[in-house]
Amino acid sequence: MSTTHDQVVGVVRAARDAAKSVARATTDQKNAALRAMADAIASRKGAILKANAQDVAEAKGAGLSNSLVDRLTLNDSRVAEMVRSVRAVIDLPDPVGEVMRTIERPNGLRIQKVRVPLGVLGIIYESRPNVTSECASLGLKSGNAVVLRGGSESFRSNEAIRDAIQEALAKTGLPAAAVGLIPVRDRVGVDVMLKLNDLIDVIIPRGGEALIRKISEESRIPVIKHAKGVCHVFVDRSADPDMAEAIVLNAKCQRPGTCNALETLLVHKEIAPVFLPRIVHALKNAGVEIRGDEQTRAVDSAVKPATEEDWSTEYLDLILSVKVVPEIGAAIEHISRYGSAHSDAIVTRDDGNAERFLAQVDSAAVYVNASTRFTDGFQFGLGAEVGISTERLHARGPMGLEELTTYKYVVHGAGQVRE
Amino acid sequence: MSTTHDQVVGVVRAARDAAKSVARATTDQKNAALRAMADAIASRKGAILKANAQDVAEAKGAGLSNSLVDRLTLNDSRVAEMVRSVRAVIDLPDPVGEVMRTIERPNGLRIQKVRVPLGVLGIIYESRPNVTSECASLGLKSGNAVVLRGGSESFRSNEAIRDAIQEALAKTGLPAAAVGLIPVRDRVGVDVMLKLNDLIDVIIPRGGEALIRKISEESRIPVIKHAKGVCHVFVDRSADPDMAEAIVLNAKCQRPGTCNALETLLVHKEIAPVFLPRIVHALKNAGVEIRGDEQTRAVDSAVKPATEEDWSTEYLDLILSVKVVPEIGAAIEHISRYGSAHSDAIVTRDDGNAERFLAQVDSAAVYVNASTRFTDGFQFGLGAEVGISTERLHARGPMGLEELTTYKYVVHGAGQVRE
Repeated sequence: MSTTHDQVVGVVRAARDAAKSVARATTDQKNAALRAMADAIASRKGAILKANAQDVAEAKGAGLSNSLVDRLTLNDSRVAEMVRSVRAVIDLPDPVGEVMRTIERPNGLRIQKVRVPLGVLGIIYESRPNVTSECASLGLKSGNAVVLRGGSESFRSNEAIRDAIQEALAKTGLPAAAVGLIPVRDRVGVDVMLKLNDLIDVIIPRGGEALIRKISEESRIPVIKHAKGVCHVFVDRSADPDMAEAIVLNAKCQRPGTCNALETLLVHKEIAPVFLPRIVHALKNAGVEIRGDEQTRAVDSAVKPATEEDWSTEYLDLILSVKVVPEIGAAIEHISRYGSAHSDAIVTRDDGNAERFLAQVDSAAVYVNASTRFTDGFQFGLGAEVGISTERLHARGPMGLEELTTYKYVVHGAGQVRE
Repeated sequence: MSTTHDQVVGVVRAARDAAKSVARATTDQKNAALRAMADAIASRKGAILKANAQDVAEAKGAGLSNSLVDRLTLNDSRVAEMVRSVRAVIDLPDPVGEVMRTIERPNGLRIQKVRVPLGVLGIIYESRPNVTSECASLGLKSGNAVVLRGGSESFRSNEAIRDAIQEALAKTGLPAAAVGLIPVRDRVGVDVMLKLNDLIDVIIPRGGEALIRKISEESRIPVIKHAKGVCHVFVDRSADPDMAEAIVLNAKCQRPGTCNALETLLVHKEIAPVFLPRIVHALKNAGVEIRGDEQTRAVDSAVKPATEEDWSTEYLDLILSVKVVPEIGAAIEHISRYGSAHSDAIVTRDDGNAERFLAQVDSAAVYVNASTRFTDGFQFGLGAEVGISTERLHARGPMGLEELTTYKYVVHGAGQVRE
């Protein structure tokens, strides 16, 4: 226990020390390190795949689910994708040093609000080993040191990726410790990490509800949660049924395991007689299990009854809850009560209702006539992201390079004193 | 206990419900409410002063310090100042609804990043009753509901001010509950408040170290701390001695009880033989107690020895610690080790050293050739503030109307789905 504690503190303290060098690194230095990181991951592919094969074998032996094993598994094309992701960060603009605002005061003071790195990022995630290189590259480009804690099932894969990254950092003159990995597999590593509020500036957790809850409750460090997305589409009375069907199918089926996928469909009662049979049919054909209220169940005997719990459930699967609502106010009220303020959409031809929905639904992203699946840094044109924040403070929605920074006020004077 | 709990939850839940109306209020509505608030405070001056006199009598009876009693005491001119402060918020620009960024995507999606209120602000402070009306007016203008918790010694004064504010809100059609006051005097009120993470979006504590520490440790709600300012002035080798003296005296003496006042003076060893005797003399004349290292003590027998603890102490009084450093790097190192990352200044005629100091001192505000006392929303030209944040996340430095908001992404489509 004491050894575990010391090991974790050692990695985190080294990252803290390295943070100063990374914060001061020029854009060229950071880009050179990113290029070297991409190269090192490519050239160490053999070692990474070997470590991953051990993780996968152990996961299968432990009886982990197929979907978990799939998320864990690396192969040639997934490593190539990791390399591409790191290279893509080179082209993103460096946020550090940006003058966000300049204020010239009557007394001659020149006050500049300048973007600076946050410091040391603690990122906690599960399963997919490619998150390791993604978070390392985004942290580095935004001038931060990072301490990573992946899932215990991907421990060896993450170590192999970390080794490649640290080799690249050292080769390009940046401290290897700027990208650290919590060096113990069991949960104690996280427990120790969450208490180090003098060494880590922010904890960014990505993962299931249990993980996020544990971290929120135990962390002494500010947390920017990437929690669940219970996303809605409301099909208004005036919706174009073709458009509504396309949006619902896309939001539910295009990639159901993501946080911006549709979980609950709300249908205006006046369009329900036409639209419900049609969408239930289309969803069934797409292999979606439907859990509906009474009106939805009347459409098709295959529709299961939705329980109270369904309305706040993130299925992350081909399951959809469906409810008929009397009017737009009831839809907004339902979203406010059961939703998770992630991504919600209205399909309508009524501009007034569109604007009302956009104004009154208080979610990170609100849509009119588009799929909720667009809530994503790349899709928004913001570049890569460490995830989708479900916080209200600091960063909301896609959290990219800018959101990994803070600012300071830089003031130039000529002897001014306060009256 | 159960009654206290229910009373606190009642006020907070009412604020949560009121938050929607305040978030949707137009700028005109909010300004009308602010005007009515100012009028109501002015017209209820008698009741406010009477309640305050009771608080003051009790505080004196309980043997509170003179400075605390002074902070607590209201009179005609202080009430007039409260009224002026509320009116000043009317002229500030409304941050809500500002389109911070518009992104037009190749697929035709129009994505707008729009400023929205944070929701319900929990503000915890001590002593000065004018904070009640200041925070209420800033919270309202930024579209938030607020739940206020002042010092127990100013409980009756705060109630009287709250009554005036609620009367004004009701008169102008906004829910009175949008400005709530925790209705119990003892500490249990805070304990209950800090657990209501479903009802309060952020806790903003202003006060002494013990209060801030307690809140940071116990809050289940994100906290934006307004903690201590251990501020430095470094007088570089090339400093203009006249300018350096004026800045040091101003930063220390102009209002020593504030968080942006100077607490530690660092002097380059090459200018020390000339500058130290001069500044020690000037500080003594200004009534400042000096606690110095060996070199400073050699200048004047009145200089007391500084202990290790002095270097990280916020005196908030006419006391100053003084140290001679061998070069600028040592000054930066000292500030990084002992400072609180609030406001730090260099006095120099060397542009290279100025830029090095500004870049490497990682504080909310860094100055070259100006007094640290300028770290203030009004002095920065940002308008009124709820305080000076010592956080790195969300808001750093002066926290005004913009910092009391978050944003959401508003997306207009024409049927777009993700490929």
